[in-house]
Parts: sequence; C-alpha cells; structure tokens
Amino acid sequence: MRITCKKSEILNSVNISLKAVPAKTTMPILECIIIEVTDNTIKFITNDMELGIETLVNGTVTAPGSVAINAKIFSDIIRKLPDSDVTIDTDANYMTTISCEKSVFTIAGKSSEEFPALPLIEKKEPMVLSQFSLKEIIRQTVFSISDNESNKIMTGELFEINGDEFKVVSLDGHRISVRKIFLKNDFMATKVIVPGKTLNEISKILSGEMEDEVRIFFTDKHILFEFDSTIVLSRLIEGEYYKINQMLSGDYETKISVNRKVFLDCIDRATLLIKESEKKPIILGVTENSMELKVNSTIGSMNEEMDIVKEGKDILIGFNPKFLMDALRVIDDEEVTIYMTNPKAPCFIKNEEESYIYLVLPVNFNAVK
Amino acid sequence: MRITCKKSEILNSVNISLKAVPAKTTMPILECIIIEVTDNTIKFITNDMELGIETLVNGTVTAPGSVAINAKIFSDIIRKLPDSDVTIDTDANYMTTISCEKSVFTIAGKSSEEFPALPLIEKKEPMVLSQFSLKEIIRQTVFSISDNESNKIMTGELFEINGDEFKVVSLDGHRISVRKIFLKNDFMATKVIVPGKTLNEISKILSGEMEDEVRIFFTDKHILFEFDSTIVLSRLIEGEYYKINQMLSGDYETKISVNRKVFLDCIDRATLLIKESEKKPIILGVTENSMELKVNSTIGSMNEEMDIVKEGKDILIGFNPKFLMDALRVIDDEEVTIYMTNPKAPCFIKNEEESYIYLVLPVNFNAVK
Repeated sequence: MRITCKKSEILNSVNISLKAVPAKTTMPILECIIIEVTDNTIKFITNDMELGIETLVNGTVTAPGSVAINAKIFSDIIRKLPDSDVTIDTDANYMTTISCEKSVFTIAGKSSEEFPALPLIEKKEPMVLSQFSLKEIIRQTVFSISDNESNKIMTGELFEINGDEFKVVSLDGHRISVRKIFLKNDFMATKVIVPGKTLNEISKILSGEMEDEVRIFFTDKHILFEFDSTIVLSRLIEGEYYKINQMLSGDYETKISVNRKVFLDCIDRATLLIKESEKKPIILGVTENSMELKVNSTIGSMNEEMDIVKEGKDILIGFNPKFLMDALRVIDDEEVTIYMTNPKAPCFIKNEEESYIYLVLPVNFNAVK
Repeated sequence: MRITCKKSEILNSVNISLKAVPAKTTMPILECIIIEVTDNTIKFITNDMELGIETLVNGTVTAPGSVAINAKIFSDIIRKLPDSDVTIDTDANYMTTISCEKSVFTIAGKSSEEFPALPLIEKKEPMVLSQFSLKEIIRQTVFSISDNESNKIMTGELFEINGDEFKVVSLDGHRISVRKIFLKNDFMATKVIVPGKTLNEISKILSGEMEDEVRIFFTDKHILFEFDSTIVLSRLIEGEYYKINQMLSGDYETKISVNRKVFLDCIDRATLLIKESEKKPIILGVTENSMELKVNSTIGSMNEEMDIVKEGKDILIGFNPKFLMDALRVIDDEEVTIYMTNPKAPCFIKNEEESYIYLVLPVNFNAVK
C-alpha cells in the first residue's frame, strides 16, 4: 500500500476518525485506524463497537492495500509533520513508513484482517437536515441525559419523527429537555433511542454550517449519519422510551418573564457558595414584579433581586441551580417564560410554540428567613 | 472597615495577591487575603512565608480597619460580580458583606491580627530594569532550575551584578543556562540566590512592558521587587552558588550553525517516539554541511536530515531532546551556533557576545546503524 496526501487532508480525517477510537479496550486492534486503499479511494476506518466511522481522504494512490496503525501514534506523527505532502508506504510485514519532506518515520503496523467490519446498512430514504440544526438540537438537549449506565435508556436521547416534525427528548429523572424542529420534507414515523455518547461525538465532527447537509438513515438496530466525506454508524439503544406527554401537560399558578442573561449570571454567582457535596438549593422568592434569589451555605450567604414580569400567585421555590443554568444556557431567547405551580410541582421553561420545553423538578428546602 | 472600589481594580489586585497564597498550609490564616485600610489607602496583603505580596487598590475609604478573608472564596465572588462598583463592609465580628448592584454576598472573615506581617525592608539604592527585561531573563533561564528540594541551591537562580552587568544563572546538574544583560546604571557588586518559585510567580505578575520599571532591593536575607502599585518580597536561598566559570570555558572541535526553528521542529517530531520512561536520546550525526537526526525506540524510528554550516570535525553525539528544546525555545536568534568537542563533553549553544550560554551534557547511546 502506498499513498500520498496533503498533511492537512490526513489530519482532518484523522481527527474525525479518533472520535471512534476507544480510550480503553480489551481488543488492541480497536486502538488502530484502518487505512483502506483501493485503486481510487483512500478510506480511514475506526470502530469502538458502539460507534463506527468511515471517512474518505483526498490523495493519490500508488498501490492499493490496507494496514492497521495505532491511532494515537499515527495522529501524533501527522500533527507534527511539516505542512506538505505526506507519503504513507506499507511493506508486506506492515512496517509503515511515513515520510514528509526530509522527515521519515517508521512504525510497525498490523494486518487489518482482525478488525471488526462495520455492519452493512441498507440506505433507504434519508431524513435530511442541516448540520447546523442537528448540532444545535444535540447541544440543546444532550446535557440532561443520565450518565448512569444502570439505566441504559436514560443515557440516550429519543429521536421522534412525525411527518415533518423532528423531536428530540432527553431526561435524567430530575428534568426533561424537549426540542422540536421542522424538516423540509415529511419523513416516515420513526421513534428510536440514540446513545448520548454518539451524539456528543458526532456534534464534534459536524461543521455546524447551515448550508451543509447531513443525511440520516435508520434500521432496527442502527442509525447512520452521512455528511461531507464521512459516515458515522451507531448502534441504537433497545427498549421503549418514557412516555413524557402526560408529564409535560398541566396547568400553572405562576408565570414569570425574566431576562435570560441576568437570571443566568445571578444563578452563576450564587453557585459560588455551594459546594458540590452540600447540594444546597437556590431559592427563588417571586413577588409582584420582583424575584429574590437566595443561597445559604456553610461558606456564606448570597442575596440578589431582579426585575420580572409576573402573572398569578406569589411563590417561594427551591432548585438545583445547575439544572436551571443548563437549560438557560441553551436557550437563545433574550426573555424566557417560566411556569410554576407549587414548591413541589415541576417548573417549565418554554416558549409559546413549544419548540423548546425544559422541565425541572424543584427541591425541598428549609424556609429561609 | 468599609470601602468602595471598581470591580476591575479589586480583581486585578486579587489576581496579584493570589500568587502568594499557599495551595496547602497548616496555618489557615495564610489562605486569607488581608484587606488593610487606612484613611487613604487600601492594601491587599498575602504571605506564604517564602513570598509576600502587598498591593494597593484604588478606591474610596468610608471607614478604615482590616479583615482577613479566604482568598479563594473572595476571588471567586469578585470574579463573578457585574462590572460595576463593589462595596466591602466588615462589622465588629468580621462578618463581611460584599455588594455590587443588586447582589449581596455575606461571608465570615477573621481578624487579621494573627497574620504574619511581612518583614520590614530598608529600601536603599534600587537596581532598576524594565519589567520586560526581568520577565524575559527569568523565562530564558528558569526552566533549568532543579525541582529537587534536597539540593536547595539548585532550586534557585543566581543573580549576579557587577557594575552594569546583570547575570542570571540556573543549573540542574545536566545543563546550565546563563543570560547577561546590561543595566542603565552601575550597581553595587551583588551575588544572591533567588528561589525559582519566586521568579515563576513574579513573572506572572510583571506587565512585561518595556516602559514599565521594576526596582529591586537586596538585603542579607531578602529580595524585594517594587513595581506598579505592588511589592513582592521573597526570602533568598542561603549558601554559596556553584562556581560555573571553569565549566563554561574550554575549546571545541566542531562548530555548527543551524536554523533554530527547523532544528526545534525536528527534535519536537522526534520526541513523539520517546516515552518518558525510556529516556531514549536523539542522536545527531554531523557531517559536511548536513546533520542527521535519529531516534530509535520501542514505538518506531525517525530519521531526518537538515542543512547546516559546519567547521571542524564530524561528530556523532546523543542528547536528551528536552534539554535541547528548552534552550532552543528561549533563544530569539534565527540561526544558532552550537559548539561540541566529543560525545562525552558538554555542548554549548551560545552567541558571540555570550549574552546567552546554554550548556547541555550529552547522553550515552548505543551506536545506531
């Protein structure tokens, strides 16, 4: 196998490929990038058994073939090479020579034979959206998945498509995040659970550009993302997702409008006084056109007032400040509307169209003077 | 005690003060910043018993007094406050209220009485140089101090002044760094050992501007740096510094000129293949107008050739690549000259005027084919 590519082309593809290289594994072959070269294509393949990535590299093929090279060493070498043409040459024993200008590296590769091939996916009709939309909808929901592996379903996100409506849901037992966008075209009714890890990794690869497309294909067990010169294939999480509709409906007693940035900064300040271990809440005291925020901890106390617009009853309610901040950070609106019922019932941050709904459960607190 | 200052003023002084707050200490009072307020000055004081810092803060005094406040909590709070006027108010029990716009923090302070006062230094004639020069000369030498506390003298740097010549030396047993600059005025002959930690901290505070001055005062046991509104006071390391002059003299057999950046990048690439634990050298093979760099490790091998200008004999010599890189990184010249004698004798990287001299000991290697 012998190829010549621009350093920048290889580096770009290596960076994508690394997202599916496991940090720890009992199968050393998974620590490799497979370079698979046919007469006219150069492909890098990685696979951590949950997530698989194939990406094409522009370059010149002198001899086809394939080799498995330790991904970390390969990426370190490529990164440090001068910005010039790089030739990768593998002999019959998989000894691999990487040369660039006057620099020559020689490292031992392996046969790619024992590398687990990515499952073949039949590509039917794709669901199409912009890389921007997919990246955004992931960012706006993925923070509220659970990282507790004992409840597998909570570690993923629900992707639900009905006609032209694409809805993403995540929840961790304390809160629920829901985002909705509309597709350009209708798509068949679909309901799958995508691993949070997959979504985190893919959002690092996506360009995030409005004009770049991503095509998504579904099978019973897999989801496949196709964009630019890359495909990312992930297993789905099996099982039935939580029925959230009844949790999201219901009336409210208090509705307030606040400036998102002011509210966020204020909570951020208050959390200074809260040690992780203490789990102290931030207490919101809503009265006529004003909201008081209070924190009392072993370190000290904090008190701040902010202007709001209120409809309905006064309320005194406590929250885990992190949960409020996570939601407020991913909302783009300048003003947000918050709906509350009583100090034990969930609160909702949502807009009129319900293109976003963030449900946060309150926490108990000992009434503070 | 009651003062009002701009948030930015307080933050700036807090950041300076933090440099003398110990990470770990058995004396909790040292974790505090002392706010000392007289009728017309506001001063922050910190002291980790090696290093003490006093810095003045611009602001309005309403009531004089003093308080000790946990430095970390205080700095966290200040950092997150809105960019506006901040009022700090302490009551008779040292309860301290920090208010800014609608935000009010209350934390418990302490009496500043048990805080160890900084020793009083009699300020005689100062040695004066620009903050730029001091910051540079520290950066260009401090990397080769030793971090092994069992040899205290090696953890510091020699400051030697003779007339208008200011020389700084550091060494760790494998290498020596020497930098010389000329002062505007003569200064009395001085020879002291300044702790490396002090120099590292002070170079973080120095503006690095050519037009900003720093005034340095010496006593038997202390060095005092005075600049902007800040004084930094440090203990000196007691003892006699190594006599390095005879180590720096001597003849050479090979003299080469190389492009610094090309040489540095090449060594940087080669180190990829070297694991910390292996201690593999980089081998330089100097022949007529060309130098070959080689590394052979368990990961693989690397080979690169670069153009040089040579005078004298060919040589094959091995180095710890980190030592070469440390020196090459802090030299500003585009071309550097390297003097070698034989594979067991020290090599020198220095310029004609000897405003810098970097001595690096070679390492043994098994001749590589």
